[in-house]
Amino acid sequence: MLSKNELKYYAGLLQRKKRDSERKFIVEGKRLLDEALKSKFDCEILCCTNQFYEQYSHQIKTAKDKNIRVEIIPNKDLQKLCDTKSPQGIIGIFEMPSNGNNLLDLIDDELIVALDNIRDPGNLGTIIRTCNWFGISSIILSESCVELFNPKVVRSSMGSIFNLTFLQRVNLKQWLPEQKDKFEILAADLTGTSIRDYDLSNKSIILFSSEAHGIDNELLPLVDEKITIKGKGNAESLNVASAAAIILENLTQH
Amino acid sequence: MLSKNELKYYAGLLQRKKRDSERKFIVEGKRLLDEALKSKFDCEILCCTNQFYEQYSHQIKTAKDKNIRVEIIPNKDLQKLCDTKSPQGIIGIFEMPSNGNNLLDLIDDELIVALDNIRDPGNLGTIIRTCNWFGISSIILSESCVELFNPKVVRSSMGSIFNLTFLQRVNLKQWLPEQKDKFEILAADLTGTSIRDYDLSNKSIILFSSEAHGIDNELLPLVDEKITIKGKGNAESLNVASAAAIILENLTQH
Repeated sequence: MLSKNELKYYAGLLQRKKRDSERKFIVEGKRLLDEALKSKFDCEILCCTNQFYEQYSHQIKTAKDKNIRVEIIPNKDLQKLCDTKSPQGIIGIFEMPSNGNNLLDLIDDELIVALDNIRDPGNLGTIIRTCNWFGISSIILSESCVELFNPKVVRSSMGSIFNLTFLQRVNLKQWLPEQKDKFEILAADLTGTSIRDYDLSNKSIILFSSEAHGIDNELLPLVDEKITIKGKGNAESLNVASAAAIILENLTQH
Repeated sequence: MLSKNELKYYAGLLQRKKRDSERKFIVEGKRLLDEALKSKFDCEILCCTNQFYEQYSHQIKTAKDKNIRVEIIPNKDLQKLCDTKSPQGIIGIFEMPSNGNNLLDLIDDELIVALDNIRDPGNLGTIIRTCNWFGISSIILSESCVELFNPKVVRSSMGSIFNLTFLQRVNLKQWLPEQKDKFEILAADLTGTSIRDYDLSNKSIILFSSEAHGIDNELLPLVDEKITIKGKGNAESLNVASAAAIILENLTQH
């Protein structure tokens, strides 16, 4: 059982403000929870319906063995903890990792992804999933990106969010110049060197920006090389997650 | 002005059933309408708020010059015609093109994209946009794909939907065998020949399926070559629109 106050407290985590102050977030659904429970993230509590409890008793037992609190709650209460319309009968509350203690670790990365102005949660989640596929381990998010633990971001990352390291709310205008002696700064753009003609030779940071607004004018002077994807049709641009997929595939194939 | 009955009729087009029977669909927002009005699609009517009419009088004049009916309607009525929460003040009603009269035209295409079981409208729209970018002109949609003129598909295609030719609700189990003498059948899969080792030598159809379910078992025997994207990390799969972007970039670069 959850007390009324607990239910209210956890449901509050659907709001960004509460996530920010409590440093906790909600993970919905069996598959995402499988990934989350395997990861380094700490789980505070699992809440599931009686039906889920009976159907997936093995998953519940694994959680209990790890001393995670498990509560069976009515379906109508579970819905209050869910962002989706048809929840799968289970959610978990996880603690956010601390931010910024791993700035120094980054210097071991060959290729770091930096994101600016990525506001669509589906796009951010998809980019995280793509980075995970291609073995990229660190993503830098500027202040203008959608919040990392937004439920739609977590969902569309398909669990990859639990495998990567993030620096959030980074002021790229300050941060990028500090990296210039260690990293080459690349940026995806509608003009520039074709990704087919570009080979990664140094440790690099690749910047992806919103396709609607392009690279921020104040960041442009920091960019060593603009990278582009040559098209043949008459579309105006590619979706930013599609562009990131193409560029990351090219940069990691060598 | 729109009559009450007209408003009700057009608002009905937000439902798939009505779109199917009336063969019409709604296009929302200034940018998408710019693309739609440039295309071969016929526009029945434009409805906009007074504010939009005053701000973008030039766009309205262009439409009127083409003898398109333009009506100014109150914002609360416009909202009834919109799928988005913050509409931009203008929508247009367009006629769907007829389906299936262009089966024979396809044999001129070097590369055709076939989609099976793509149920997420954002993914379908994004794939359409990517196809348009890489100069692919024909897309085949199986019966299990989300409907092409779903408002979210139209929106996420960013107007590319108006530039391509589609065959919808195709039974791929019947249709693919009929193409085998003219086309090589490729399919994206988690295993197969690396896209980096594959060169397009014949006219080809490339099949993309839902990443959750993979290639339909009944279609598998029709596939000449399975194509895969080698990863380095521990993600389970790529988003289907990201995979399509990577594969189409590789196939069209030569």
